[in-house]
Parts: sequence; C-alpha cells; structure tokens
Amino acid sequence: MYPDDGFRELGRQECLRLMAGVPVGRIVFTRRALPAVLPVNFRLDADGAVLLRTAAGSELVRAVDGAVVAFEADDVDAARHSGWSVVVTGPAAVVTDPAEHRRLARTGPVSWAPSAREVFVRVEAELVTGRELVGGRSLYGASLAVADG
Amino acid sequence: MYPDDGFRELGRQECLRLMAGVPVGRIVFTRRALPAVLPVNFRLDADGAVLLRTAAGSELVRAVDGAVVAFEADDVDAARHSGWSVVVTGPAAVVTDPAEHRRLARTGPVSWAPSAREVFVRVEAELVTGRELVGGRSLYGASLAVADG
Repeated sequence: MYPDDGFRELGRQECLRLMAGVPVGRIVFTRRALPAVLPVNFRLDADGAVLLRTAAGSELVRAVDGAVVAFEADDVDAARHSGWSVVVTGPAAVVTDPAEHRRLARTGPVSWAPSAREVFVRVEAELVTGRELVGGRSLYGASLAVADG
Repeated sequence: MYPDDGFRELGRQECLRLMAGVPVGRIVFTRRALPAVLPVNFRLDADGAVLLRTAAGSELVRAVDGAVVAFEADDVDAARHSGWSVVVTGPAAVVTDPAEHRRLARTGPVSWAPSAREVFVRVEAELVTGRELVGGRSLYGASLAVADG
C-alpha cells in the first residue's frame, strides 16, 4: 500500500468516495489543439460517471462532446504536505435521452447560475486513478500524483 | 468588467498576483494520447513563468519536456459560489543551463519530498487567462471559466 515513492494508491471505490465529498473539480480537454482546463461543479452518478450541467451551445460543450477527457479533483493541505488527488478519464457526451435528462434534472448537479437552456454532460468513469499522500515524506518530487518510471 | 455572463476577466498581472498566493496548481498535458492532469506545488518566476521541481527522469518530465502545457490554479468558495481560476499556457522545458539551475536552486520551488536528482521545469507564460466570479450570479452554467460562443 505504501510503495517507496511514498504514495498510497487509491482503489476505485475510495477514489469515488473522496471525489463525492468535494463540490468542484476540473475538466481537462483540448481546445484549438491546446490543453485546456476549467473548474466546474459536479456530481457523481451511481456508476461513478462525472455529471456536469452547463449551458447548451457553450464552448465547453462543443469542446468535450464526444471527446475523451480527464476530470480531476483534489484536496491538498499545503502546510502538512498531505492530501489526495483523483482523476477520472473517459469519453464525455451530452445527455440526449429525454428520460435520462429528466432524471438528472432531479438528481444531477445544480447550476450555480442557471441559464435558459442547459444540458448535462456525462464523463464515463472508464479509468479512475488516485493517490493519497501523507505528511511530508509522501510527495514524489514536485508532483502529488506522478508515477516514476 | 462585468459582462452579461457574470464573469470578470482578469488581466495578466492580476492573474499572476492571484496565482502567486497559492502553493499548489495543476499541470495539464498529454500522456499516451490521453489528457492528463497532476497537482504540483510551484513558484512563479519574475516573468510569470511557472516553475516546478521534480525528480529527473520522472514520467512527468518525459511527458512535458518540449510540449505545450497548461497550468491551472484556482480558489473557489463553494458555499458562496465565488472564486477565481487562472490558466497559464505555454511550452514546458527542463532547465538545462547550469547557472539558471543554480539560481532556481536558491529561489525556485522546494520539493515537498526531495529526491536524489531533481530538475526544474519551466512553463513559459505565453498565454495567461483568468476569471473571477463573485457570489452566486456569476457562474456561467456549470463552468467557472468557459466563455460562451
């Protein structure tokens, strides 16, 4: 559980449990051939998929619909040099099924500033990785989550 | 300053001032053709470049040296639906000049867990963008930082 680099690898369920406890993560995608990243509020669906709610026709929707994206959440205590980081990687898609849209309107994330026409974006949790670092000795170089090789 | 979407766009100097006040950001890059993101502690250089310190030969170094990356920092108050997000986009490179390495060993970031051989990675601040959102009405859909189009 505690390899030499000081990290503890987190299992899928532990990753999802930690993610579920924070309101905001960051979606990572490609925009005009450049890496892009945006903080967004989110909820996890029962199967671990990341659910976002945003304006239909937004730049975010155009950039991520149909693309493989990463979604990261973390909680780091800089004073103690401890914390965790979880990344969900998978295909993102706008929810088009009307019944599913209705379900998410009841149970999905709530926009912090609702707009007239909103869509839900679902990021499938195909790959869920995470690491925990514990006080001081646990960071690998500058990075909280990189594996050496 | 406050367009209809509720955001206040931040100028370059304001972005860098905000970034300088947080210890940890997230580097966004491509790894095995997939979007990847890692929290890292960092410092800003005088010209706004993002400085990281990590183990030589790490996976992070291999992935970002010579590539264009994004580096994001934010501070979000989920209860008040307010906060800011800044993204620096530019080419990343390992610092190879010995004099520059010595300078950064004195003034650059300190590893939270030093390793035997470390390098500095510099992300040039070619593009610096940021937005501030202020209490409730300021979020654009789910996203703190996406521009509509």
